[in-house]
Amino acid sequence: MRMKSWVETANGPDTDFPLQNLPYGVFSTGGGAPRCGVAIGDRIVDLAACEQAGLLDADGSFSAPQLNDFMALGRARWAQIREALTALLAEDGNRDTPTVAMADATLHLPIKVTEFTDFYASKNHAFNVGVLFRGPENALPAQWTHMPIGYNGRASSVVVSGTDVIRPMGQLRGDDGPVWSACKRLDLELELGAIVGVPSEMGQRVSVEEAEEMIFGYVLLNDWSARDIQAWEYQPLGPFQAKAFATTISPWVVTQAALEPFRSEGATRDNPLLPYLQEKRPGLYDIDLAWSLNGQVLARTNYTTMYYSSAQQLAHHTESGCPMRVGDLLGSGTISGPTPDSTGALLEMTQGGKSPIQTDSGERSFLLDGDQVGLHGHAQGDGFRIGFGPCLGTILPAKE
Amino acid sequence: MRMKSWVETANGPDTDFPLQNLPYGVFSTGGGAPRCGVAIGDRIVDLAACEQAGLLDADGSFSAPQLNDFMALGRARWAQIREALTALLAEDGNRDTPTVAMADATLHLPIKVTEFTDFYASKNHAFNVGVLFRGPENALPAQWTHMPIGYNGRASSVVVSGTDVIRPMGQLRGDDGPVWSACKRLDLELELGAIVGVPSEMGQRVSVEEAEEMIFGYVLLNDWSARDIQAWEYQPLGPFQAKAFATTISPWVVTQAALEPFRSEGATRDNPLLPYLQEKRPGLYDIDLAWSLNGQVLARTNYTTMYYSSAQQLAHHTESGCPMRVGDLLGSGTISGPTPDSTGALLEMTQGGKSPIQTDSGERSFLLDGDQVGLHGHAQGDGFRIGFGPCLGTILPAKE
Repeated sequence: MRMKSWVETANGPDTDFPLQNLPYGVFSTGGGAPRCGVAIGDRIVDLAACEQAGLLDADGSFSAPQLNDFMALGRARWAQIREALTALLAEDGNRDTPTVAMADATLHLPIKVTEFTDFYASKNHAFNVGVLFRGPENALPAQWTHMPIGYNGRASSVVVSGTDVIRPMGQLRGDDGPVWSACKRLDLELELGAIVGVPSEMGQRVSVEEAEEMIFGYVLLNDWSARDIQAWEYQPLGPFQAKAFATTISPWVVTQAALEPFRSEGATRDNPLLPYLQEKRPGLYDIDLAWSLNGQVLARTNYTTMYYSSAQQLAHHTESGCPMRVGDLLGSGTISGPTPDSTGALLEMTQGGKSPIQTDSGERSFLLDGDQVGLHGHAQGDGFRIGFGPCLGTILPAKE
Repeated sequence: MRMKSWVETANGPDTDFPLQNLPYGVFSTGGGAPRCGVAIGDRIVDLAACEQAGLLDADGSFSAPQLNDFMALGRARWAQIREALTALLAEDGNRDTPTVAMADATLHLPIKVTEFTDFYASKNHAFNVGVLFRGPENALPAQWTHMPIGYNGRASSVVVSGTDVIRPMGQLRGDDGPVWSACKRLDLELELGAIVGVPSEMGQRVSVEEAEEMIFGYVLLNDWSARDIQAWEYQPLGPFQAKAFATTISPWVVTQAALEPFRSEGATRDNPLLPYLQEKRPGLYDIDLAWSLNGQVLARTNYTTMYYSSAQQLAHHTESGCPMRVGDLLGSGTISGPTPDSTGALLEMTQGGKSPIQTDSGERSFLLDGDQVGLHGHAQGDGFRIGFGPCLGTILPAKE
């Protein structure tokens, strides 16, 4: 069943933004103030203007330069606004709804990232990387099949698609002690990011079902990684500067509501999970994912290859009583399939750089200056798709 | 040289808050709005009221419920306000300066913690813990003497002294796979926290000298740790839920200006540091530290036992281009001397629980429900001391 919009470009089978999607973002036009919007075809609904015109009621939160105020209104209001927007934009809706051409808009970081937590929940990825860092016998940590392993990332360096990424400097392992150098093994990581819209209290443990109710939506997330900095620094307390220089997210937050029809089972479990991590219904979504180098797609995978869902990760995040806040960003972990052409990072695809790949841009072990990486994702419906829009970043030379 | 105040309780040799200190905090009285204050003897200068009365000029930032707005005004304004406060509170100052009795005030979290990063910079602590977790041959990681190892902590669970700490639940290693249990090895960590008051840009690497200029002040910091949760979860990506349930800081931020006379050399270096970490002058302070269990001091140490200063840690934090923000909190890492009675954690003092200690409250390997831990610290001047006030937390039973 396709739903048609009076915005004609929303009705094709290949648009990322049909009427069924309605992802949220933050945009500005002509140097004006950033405000909240929703993508539809090749246009953006100006939610702030809609609110001012009395077409929507979100307590003024759409005039903010990020979605946090709107997310904080809670699930009931999210559903109301989705329903109202669907009515306004449907074929028989209100053609006076204020929109701007996406081509005329600048897209900004859609949320104020309160804190950023990154997980490690693809078994293919965890095994592949584990082999490279610790050898095949220690590849998968003992607790891996029992809990979604996560670590705190850095929120201040989360940027929106299109922001250039400066190759980081750092300490690398050398023959006679460390050397100070530009990163030589710069990598991408293809991930989904879940955005928390409903907070939890300190000391409150949330169930997987409650956690799912806290998630507002999802973005594509590129967790850029400096593999040589990481190898030297990461034991025993985890990655630090190797991942602190930039994390890129897509500008449109695809809501859980839009993804609901694509709910899907994940991988078979090696062992039963402890009760607090058990799901009553499938928690993943059937989302086709890909990443490209300078426009050439080099790998394709699917979100259903993951071992843990974002709801399980969020439940685990609160197991100790850790409070979650509006704007918390949870990276899924690199999403890799079982084969080299389905890996979400060059580290895996090139076997730690030992097997360079041939691309239309030449041979690559890791990323070169000037390379543009794109992440792409959509859930395929019947005659329409729920897309994320691209998540792009270009590597600039290090500032030595 | 002692400086006298018209606030008589500020003039004794044992007060934490003489005229030379003037630490900043946030307080409220009688259920009123939290606002900024400065401790002097047994009283608090009401900075918001001072500003309203025209005695101080801080652009209204003292009426905020945290110090971030004031910190964001920058070093020149910090110096101006310190000079003005010193004049107002000196023996010949203005006795109409609005103050409240500390006994009548509620103290709040002094800053909005933007992000929390914890380091691992005491060689004694790193070695002692390394032996317990990985054995003596792998105790000190190879990069330890070359860089201040750090990891991102969780900001949302940073609480002010006096907040009760609920014993966390979590996954523990069991004989037949993990078990879900209350933490059985609950520990403290005695640390100092440095607070960033001047931000840095993305892609900007700051030198150690520049980093020092970015630090507003210091607090005592108890990085509560669930050692059994930590042991099961922490490889390969570092501590997560084991430290996410609570981190307690003292309510008063002792400024770098007040600590300046106590600047001091640290430990001898095992090897030269890379240039970006080298200090032009000593970056530690001679601060006597102690921790107590139910009022009984169990260990004493000094901040000069550290291998890396907060300025070095902050410089390292920006080496990849990671931007720092007003309100970033940097934990020093556990501060341990070389002997059991100078260790900053029970893990070290009891050899991982194998050698319980006798205390006035009975035998302890780790913390019991009802235990109150206090951190204490001051720099000793000639006839006065620059104190932090206590940093207290009491353990409540787990919510199973």
